Amino acid sequence: MSKYLRLKRLLIGQSLPTSAHAEERLSNAAGLAVLSSDALSSVAYATEEILLVLIAAGSGALIWSLPIGLTIVGLLVVVILSYRQTIRAYPNGGGSYIVARENLGLYPGLIAGASLMIDYILTVTVSISAGTAAITSALPVLQNFTVELCLVFLALIMLANLRGVKESGQLFMIPTFVFIACIFLLVGLGLYQLGTGHANIPDYPADPAIKAPLTLFFVLRAFSAGCSALTGVEAISDGVLAFKPPEWKNASKTLLYLGLILGSMFIGVTYLAHAFHVMPEEGQTVVSLLGRQILGIGPLYYFIQIATLLILLLAANTSYADFPRLCYFLARDGFLPRQLAFLGERLVYSNGIIMLSLSAAVLLIVFQGNTNAVIPLYAVGVFTSFTLSQAGMVRRWLINRTQGWQASAFLNALGATVTAIVLVVIVATKFVAGAWLVVVAIPIFVYGFMRIFRHYRLVATRLSLQDIAPRSYMPHVSPEIPTHPAVVIVGQLNQGTLEALDYARNIADEIVAIHVDLGSTDRVKLQARWQTFASGIPIVIVDSPFREIVTPIANFVREFEAEHPGLMTTVIIPTFVTRNWWEGLLHNQTAFFLERALLAKKSRVVTRVRYYL
Amino acid sequence: MSKYLRLKRLLIGQSLPTSAHAEERLSNAAGLAVLSSDALSSVAYATEEILLVLIAAGSGALIWSLPIGLTIVGLLVVVILSYRQTIRAYPNGGGSYIVARENLGLYPGLIAGASLMIDYILTVTVSISAGTAAITSALPVLQNFTVELCLVFLALIMLANLRGVKESGQLFMIPTFVFIACIFLLVGLGLYQLGTGHANIPDYPADPAIKAPLTLFFVLRAFSAGCSALTGVEAISDGVLAFKPPEWKNASKTLLYLGLILGSMFIGVTYLAHAFHVMPEEGQTVVSLLGRQILGIGPLYYFIQIATLLILLLAANTSYADFPRLCYFLARDGFLPRQLAFLGERLVYSNGIIMLSLSAAVLLIVFQGNTNAVIPLYAVGVFTSFTLSQAGMVRRWLINRTQGWQASAFLNALGATVTAIVLVVIVATKFVAGAWLVVVAIPIFVYGFMRIFRHYRLVATRLSLQDIAPRSYMPHVSPEIPTHPAVVIVGQLNQGTLEALDYARNIADEIVAIHVDLGSTDRVKLQARWQTFASGIPIVIVDSPFREIVTPIANFVREFEAEHPGLMTTVIIPTFVTRNWWEGLLHNQTAFFLERALLAKKSRVVTRVRYYL
Repeated sequence: MSKYLRLKRLLIGQSLPTSAHAEERLSNAAGLAVLSSDALSSVAYATEEILLVLIAAGSGALIWSLPIGLTIVGLLVVVILSYRQTIRAYPNGGGSYIVARENLGLYPGLIAGASLMIDYILTVTVSISAGTAAITSALPVLQNFTVELCLVFLALIMLANLRGVKESGQLFMIPTFVFIACIFLLVGLGLYQLGTGHANIPDYPADPAIKAPLTLFFVLRAFSAGCSALTGVEAISDGVLAFKPPEWKNASKTLLYLGLILGSMFIGVTYLAHAFHVMPEEGQTVVSLLGRQILGIGPLYYFIQIATLLILLLAANTSYADFPRLCYFLARDGFLPRQLAFLGERLVYSNGIIMLSLSAAVLLIVFQGNTNAVIPLYAVGVFTSFTLSQAGMVRRWLINRTQGWQASAFLNALGATVTAIVLVVIVATKFVAGAWLVVVAIPIFVYGFMRIFRHYRLVATRLSLQDIAPRSYMPHVSPEIPTHPAVVIVGQLNQGTLEALDYARNIADEIVAIHVDLGSTDRVKLQARWQTFASGIPIVIVDSPFREIVTPIANFVREFEAEHPGLMTTVIIPTFVTRNWWEGLLHNQTAFFLERALLAKKSRVVTRVRYYL
Repeated sequence: MSKYLRLKRLLIGQSLPTSAHAEERLSNAAGLAVLSSDALSSVAYATEEILLVLIAAGSGALIWSLPIGLTIVGLLVVVILSYRQTIRAYPNGGGSYIVARENLGLYPGLIAGASLMIDYILTVTVSISAGTAAITSALPVLQNFTVELCLVFLALIMLANLRGVKESGQLFMIPTFVFIACIFLLVGLGLYQLGTGHANIPDYPADPAIKAPLTLFFVLRAFSAGCSALTGVEAISDGVLAFKPPEWKNASKTLLYLGLILGSMFIGVTYLAHAFHVMPEEGQTVVSLLGRQILGIGPLYYFIQIATLLILLLAANTSYADFPRLCYFLARDGFLPRQLAFLGERLVYSNGIIMLSLSAAVLLIVFQGNTNAVIPLYAVGVFTSFTLSQAGMVRRWLINRTQGWQASAFLNALGATVTAIVLVVIVATKFVAGAWLVVVAIPIFVYGFMRIFRHYRLVATRLSLQDIAPRSYMPHVSPEIPTHPAVVIVGQLNQGTLEALDYARNIADEIVAIHVDLGSTDRVKLQARWQTFASGIPIVIVDSPFREIVTPIANFVREFEAEHPGLMTTVIIPTFVTRNWWEGLLHNQTAFFLERALLAKKSRVVTRVRYYL
């Protein structure tokens, strides 16, 4: 076993046979951990984003967080109900790509696919940046290594996912449930303190002299900022097949749990933030401020902070469960490279995992692990796919008209309308800050999908056996083509050359050798040695006044082929194999350039006969 | 003609035939310009380096520049006389490497070769840095682009040299002779002013309170610093073959001119610097200070400064004439990669030129184009090779004892002794500042030479036809080996597969096809289609529970070969050729990995049959 292979085994484990595939499924609890940590972790920042917008209009505007929060929970309910219907209608996994493509057509489907791909990459980037920022805020000495830390976390998550989906489910269940428990504990204690009147509620500080007016647009902006709470909700419907059978029932149940948990946590935190007069401030999250006021700075507070950090990192993992699956669907349909549709050694889509990691690594390096720089790009993709998916479901109800279709169609239409409005608001309020990048990237992705698709279609046509006459290769019957010609390239006459001539004699019945004289060949000596060592095969010596090797040989081969029309000529290049890579550098790379030049023609096979030193 | 080729033609010109080789020679004046600008340009800094050492002992110590200058001129005379004898003894070019190797043995020769290679690279680095520093001192706005400017100059000099030696001779003659004329004009005017008593001579400023004592070591250090005047003197003897016939006579004559011109310029500048009370100062060269005092700040002063800048850049060119030639000698003898011994399209050793440029570029980037950082590494190599070369000549005289050998031997022995002392002083005074790098690098280079040499010797032994039985390949007589087996790898049954089977039928008489089932093959359908389209050739379908392709095929081929002992098996991989590089990425790279894995065995030829889309 090579060193490389041993390292690989150590990092990702033994290969798993294809027959083990069905067993590698998630329990509902594990499915919630693997597929929903993105959605759940948004509790750590969604309320804060609402407050950050409203505070510009003064502390009096903060009361608006309650209706906005309730509206978002309402939106969450609509989206969850809509996706539960999608899961039932698409038991094999109905991501927005599939739903939009089947019901709205090719391009809406591809737009949904592109939006989701971009959003999954951004989820990894945002989550890892935010988690790292939390750590570096706690330990400022690490701030100089922000990007390095981000990349280390990224590598760890990638490795965990390359090991396989079940193991990553087990690995990530604990912190997810610890985080949920912590938030419920925090909300419960907060409500208890409020109820018993023991709550420590400071006065709001005085507003600054200049504050923004509270317009409708302003409230909409705060609403759209809070909509980041909904990112990741679609993950379960895209990953139905990761659940244990009956897959769709388990997925549907898990999605309901997700909605209940996320909704209560979000509205709980939002209500407490209002009740406890929390003011968003630099370097402190809203959850952290709530913790300080409700729990005081003690072990429990630190425990909640650590759980928050971990869930933020694990949020990245949601994309690792779902991005490769989306790529599989796109690759299966011919819109992405086929390599993304192959199961790796551990029965996960390894290529998709690696592609996601590389993309996120590039973004982390470009944005220097700065969460604020990436946030404006975020959520455009997810609301595009929400809108397309729900619109697709509406169309489906209108066509199929199964029992109770009116109610479903109404719910989906409501969802599509609301998410479309949110999308417009997000793009409008974040366009200049970075959302334009996503608006530009989506059509580029779609164009790429179509180029790839056309290429695969062309290949299939060209390779098709349609209208090709069947052949019979009966053994020991002489083939239809009577002669097989070969050209052997001779640099020097040595053992490697003789090996090549032996091989040529085996495979061909008309052989000619060619040697290019760069000006330093002793022709008399070469001819004499040739007669001694290789009599019977003619050798042609070609002059090369400009000391070129490739062109004279290419010309010779072309002429030789012209004399043998309709035949496949084999060009044999003797080449010797060195023991180390550095020894290879000590020799002319002629064989490489020769091979490249000769391969430009169709009716020709170029073979290297290797002589081992 | 491809775009790349057209650009290449534009930059370096048309290919030249080998027959044009003899014409590409230098006139004596051009030879002086091409091979001696390094030596001549040292006038621009050698005096300054002496004064910079002495000034630490106070202005009273500056008088020592005169005896030191005279000693260096004496040393120059000895070295010139010695090298003229070398040129006569080695009319084909007698660089230190050749002289030391022939007369002192292998390792002294290689040490001389390594020293010279390092020094040529450093010459390019130092000269370009110094020239660029002069420009950026004049135009401080360019200081932020120091490294970029250095690399642009490097690229221009490289291109000029890739075009060919004669053209670069013409290109570089004008600035060299303008520089010589300028220095003589400056010295002449200075002497005239001194003679007529019109000279503008300032008083020396008061010495600082603390000054170094003027010990013997101190004087020796000043002497060794001034010895940078001698770098580049050996270039002509190494480049004898670049002159017009009779080469050695022209080279010898040119070396004498070089000695006369360099000696007079150097002693003239050194004397005037003393007579005009020049104090070395920050940001002003000695030549510049002399120019200001003798000419005043006017057009002539600026003209001299520009000429100084140009000659410093052209000094780099000396190495471009000589480094590739030295590499040719070393490569011819098997100590460097053979590619360095090939003449490029324009009859220059293009690979050596490119290698020198890359090495210098690395040093320019590492040292950020800072001359002072590189200077301590400089001159160690050149005095090592001086000493070895002259010691070799002494040994030659002692053995050959041709007419008048006593005088020659004495001169060479004197030169060897003096340069050896200078070498010791240079290493001692510059060791910590950077000379240690060269002291470490020389043995590493020599070790590399020997590794390369042993590799080429091994290859020659293994390829030799010594003790190999001659073969006879008479036409139309069946070869001794009656059967030729082939294995065809089948991914899918398509037109490309049929093409590969056709080829296999041409070259082999026992064929088997193998298909690896990754779990998704419809075996019944494949077998049925195979019977239709490719009957007569058996197909083996292999299971692969771990979804590997390469290993099952490699195992199958190994077993197949075991059943055919003593035969060469051809493994045929059908592969299709896409129209663009990006389309290639859309397909499995299996063929590549398969080829790599299969080539590990000797008695096997792996051939790709290409199907063009």
